[in-house]
Amino acid sequence: MKILYVYAHPEPKSFNGALKDTALTALKEKRHEVKLSDLYAMNFNPVLNEGDFTERKKPDVFKPFFEAIQASKTGAFAPDIKEEMEKVKWADLLIFQFPIFFTFMPAIMKGWIDRVLAPGFGFNPVTNSAYDTGLFKGKSTMLVTTTGAPKEMYSEGGAHGDLNKHLESITHCIFEYMGMKVLPSHIIYEASSMSKERGAEEIERYRKRIFEL
Amino acid sequence: MKILYVYAHPEPKSFNGALKDTALTALKEKRHEVKLSDLYAMNFNPVLNEGDFTERKKPDVFKPFFEAIQASKTGAFAPDIKEEMEKVKWADLLIFQFPIFFTFMPAIMKGWIDRVLAPGFGFNPVTNSAYDTGLFKGKSTMLVTTTGAPKEMYSEGGAHGDLNKHLESITHCIFEYMGMKVLPSHIIYEASSMSKERGAEEIERYRKRIFEL
Repeated sequence: MKILYVYAHPEPKSFNGALKDTALTALKEKRHEVKLSDLYAMNFNPVLNEGDFTERKKPDVFKPFFEAIQASKTGAFAPDIKEEMEKVKWADLLIFQFPIFFTFMPAIMKGWIDRVLAPGFGFNPVTNSAYDTGLFKGKSTMLVTTTGAPKEMYSEGGAHGDLNKHLESITHCIFEYMGMKVLPSHIIYEASSMSKERGAEEIERYRKRIFEL
Repeated sequence: MKILYVYAHPEPKSFNGALKDTALTALKEKRHEVKLSDLYAMNFNPVLNEGDFTERKKPDVFKPFFEAIQASKTGAFAPDIKEEMEKVKWADLLIFQFPIFFTFMPAIMKGWIDRVLAPGFGFNPVTNSAYDTGLFKGKSTMLVTTTGAPKEMYSEGGAHGDLNKHLESITHCIFEYMGMKVLPSHIIYEASSMSKERGAEEIERYRKRIFEL
């Protein structure tokens, strides 16, 4: 399989860094082809702005949705966006790994979604291309994430509620919206206060999950 | 009332810009004190990283949660974070206005939350300060947002599901988590394809909402 691994954590020596390294090694062992977007290492710019477009159809007022739809026809996206779009086009499976920051992905990864998965690329309301007719039909995706909070807090009836429900704004409204198949999220709860033993077990559990892809 | 208005849109001449201007004028008319954080105009950096801390308790490995808890005692936050924290402390009510980008706020605002509403500031798991004991008890907050998609798509039974449910990862897991009272979100659906008349009506509806605060 061709796999794009999108990763966001500011510290290579973190548990998230170890998970990412584990996955990359396991994917190679299984002879998958892998491309990595390590957003912190790339110093990826997450702020959607006028510079995202090399040509403007409406130069007077910046309408991001409108310009993205135009650019999806003309290719007038900024080079950093185009580069990521090429990786997405190439991939059969997209894996997004990040630590939960406030029940969501960190801003640097949200900005990758805002800028790269632009209107006209993965979906297009103008041509009714969404969900069953999403433009990424045939691709799959998976979230891999760690929380500070314990599982009870992120379960139904817990203080925050079911994390998987909250993540539906990503898995359903972004990925399924674009026609992708969503694999079950791989969640590691309470990762910031793990013993070494549990850390090693979680690394092993993740390696197995990656092997089964 | 003391109101902090946090705003994210890349185009001042947009409908979102008009909504923001309407709100600021109406708030002044009602003699509220207002501070504005116009994140695009400020060129706000949304990427949480090592530079967020002017002093590190663990210089070898960057642990964002740990460093934030320490900095909340010592004040070792970067100046841009401290400035925003002062506004938050000062405010009775926080209004967050943004266009929906993929069923969530744009990355630049998510990064404001990641960096400014740091562990130890609005909540503190170490001292069990969350929800009923959240550190922002007494403050209120409100989301103001515009969608491209029609209301049917963002309703229960619609393709995306109820937008208010999706926004609970913000209203519940961030704001209520920190002890704040959440006012009903002010949502303007299908804002990118409005007639001039509907645009004017929506501006008026928002002005009334602001007047009633």
